[in-house]
Amino acid sequence: MIAIVGAGALGGYYGGRLAQRGLDVHFLFRSDCQAVRQHGLRVKSCDGDFAIEPDRLHVYDDPRQMPQADLVIVTLKTTANDRLRDLVGPLLKADTVILTLQNGLGNEETLAALFGSQRVLGGMAFVCINRLGPGVIDHTAHGAIHLGEPTGGISDRASAVARLFTAAGIKARAIPDLRRGRWDKLAWNIPFNGLGALLDQSTDQLLITDQGTRLVMQLMDEVAAAAAAVGAPLGREVLQRHMDRTREMGAYRTSSQIDRQQGRPLEVEAIFGKPLEAARAAGAQTPYLEMLYFLLKQLPSPARSPGN
Amino acid sequence: MIAIVGAGALGGYYGGRLAQRGLDVHFLFRSDCQAVRQHGLRVKSCDGDFAIEPDRLHVYDDPRQMPQADLVIVTLKTTANDRLRDLVGPLLKADTVILTLQNGLGNEETLAALFGSQRVLGGMAFVCINRLGPGVIDHTAHGAIHLGEPTGGISDRASAVARLFTAAGIKARAIPDLRRGRWDKLAWNIPFNGLGALLDQSTDQLLITDQGTRLVMQLMDEVAAAAAAVGAPLGREVLQRHMDRTREMGAYRTSSQIDRQQGRPLEVEAIFGKPLEAARAAGAQTPYLEMLYFLLKQLPSPARSPGN
Repeated sequence: MIAIVGAGALGGYYGGRLAQRGLDVHFLFRSDCQAVRQHGLRVKSCDGDFAIEPDRLHVYDDPRQMPQADLVIVTLKTTANDRLRDLVGPLLKADTVILTLQNGLGNEETLAALFGSQRVLGGMAFVCINRLGPGVIDHTAHGAIHLGEPTGGISDRASAVARLFTAAGIKARAIPDLRRGRWDKLAWNIPFNGLGALLDQSTDQLLITDQGTRLVMQLMDEVAAAAAAVGAPLGREVLQRHMDRTREMGAYRTSSQIDRQQGRPLEVEAIFGKPLEAARAAGAQTPYLEMLYFLLKQLPSPARSPGN
Repeated sequence: MIAIVGAGALGGYYGGRLAQRGLDVHFLFRSDCQAVRQHGLRVKSCDGDFAIEPDRLHVYDDPRQMPQADLVIVTLKTTANDRLRDLVGPLLKADTVILTLQNGLGNEETLAALFGSQRVLGGMAFVCINRLGPGVIDHTAHGAIHLGEPTGGISDRASAVARLFTAAGIKARAIPDLRRGRWDKLAWNIPFNGLGALLDQSTDQLLITDQGTRLVMQLMDEVAAAAAAVGAPLGREVLQRHMDRTREMGAYRTSSQIDRQQGRPLEVEAIFGKPLEAARAAGAQTPYLEMLYFLLKQLPSPARSPGN
């Protein structure tokens, strides 16, 4: 049994693909639970639309009513990480593996501290995906998952989880250096999520001007410098690939831009604060990242966090 | 005769004080011209409210209809500097002095190139002032003018112009180092106009949080470093005075924040671009200013410039 904890766009999409393939997937939703129970899951996808009708879905709003899982996939917003104990705890048996596909740094460590490091895998979803409404998901580009062991190396279980995704039609692979993978994704998230939220601009709006492109490149270069300083060098081709793939995305709004538009808390600490902290500790100079972090923290905060 | 070119809040207020004192002041307005002709000038001021009725005002929308001036005070937005030739040219006789109270760097140079450097004085207005509507001005704090010769030193004519203001109840003085004065004002304008416009926050909103205060201080420090590099060192007490005075201002919206709110072009080049260029040329490290400049340029631009 596979449990999806925090079934927004990401959890709904990947969980939906696994369920569509016939796997036994149980979704923990929050506000969307009732709507999905009634109307099912509808995914518009560049890799083929699909829908899962309510009678074929297992949907919950309380983890204590869910069966224990072999694999828990965490797609919760990191701003709700203080709820991980309550949301993931009830799903665990002795050998449950937890895969976090959350953004930024620190999630493996948080899960390891709560539930034991031996359970935890980390992964990055390189995907353009938005939630259009309760149980309605728009997958517009890309979709690969890279996952691995927090301690490095390619394990049998990481390969097995990658094969689960592959069998469901998702490009997925186990990677030997999860930390480098995290910084690889940050090299995209930091400029595009950060500037997208700060300026309320989609990826194409950022790249259409010289100054936007320059901001993006400067931030990417800083992330690359920080990655090198912490011992996870990225290489120029990684950054070039990010730019190329972004140009294929069209008018993509990052989750952080949407969070800001919808008055939800931004994932400031996971995507910006923790990488900045790591860069500083390693002696890297990242003034643009530093300013971006303070600017994002200075944005008006929503009155209360709606959690997931 | 004194001509005020670009009679927004700044020109309306200082010109109004001079006119109220009985001086022969002629205002060049643009969009507000008709309204001011009809209703006069109304100033709510922390130094005493006053109004000037239409029959005591000389108001124009065409400089070719104005008499030639002994002193032209330029308070035009720098984004309309391409109109200086047409707006100021018709007002000049052989010995007309031009005082620019515009924001940022480069205005004395622009006027000197157009009309001869021997005519030009520069000045900074340290004042909290907003235009509430056509001919309606709100002066909420401070108000001193520092003015001087672009080539340095205190001249008789600079002292004479300062005395004109002083006689009208305005704190004004001729200063020996105009360049240092410009950088002094930039140390305020760059953080507060820049962050205020970028984040759409008033001065008190910026200073109420740790991260806002940190952004302000970091930018001030960079401006101070740039000023020192170009040979106009400011001293810590200057920055401290800016912070103290800002805390006295309450919820002040800078002109740049208001420009953004009202869809007008920001004074990006004068307040940010030219100082950044000067800092770079002098070898100063100003990454926060650099990022701020690119971010402000990346803000959505209004479809067309409304000029003044």
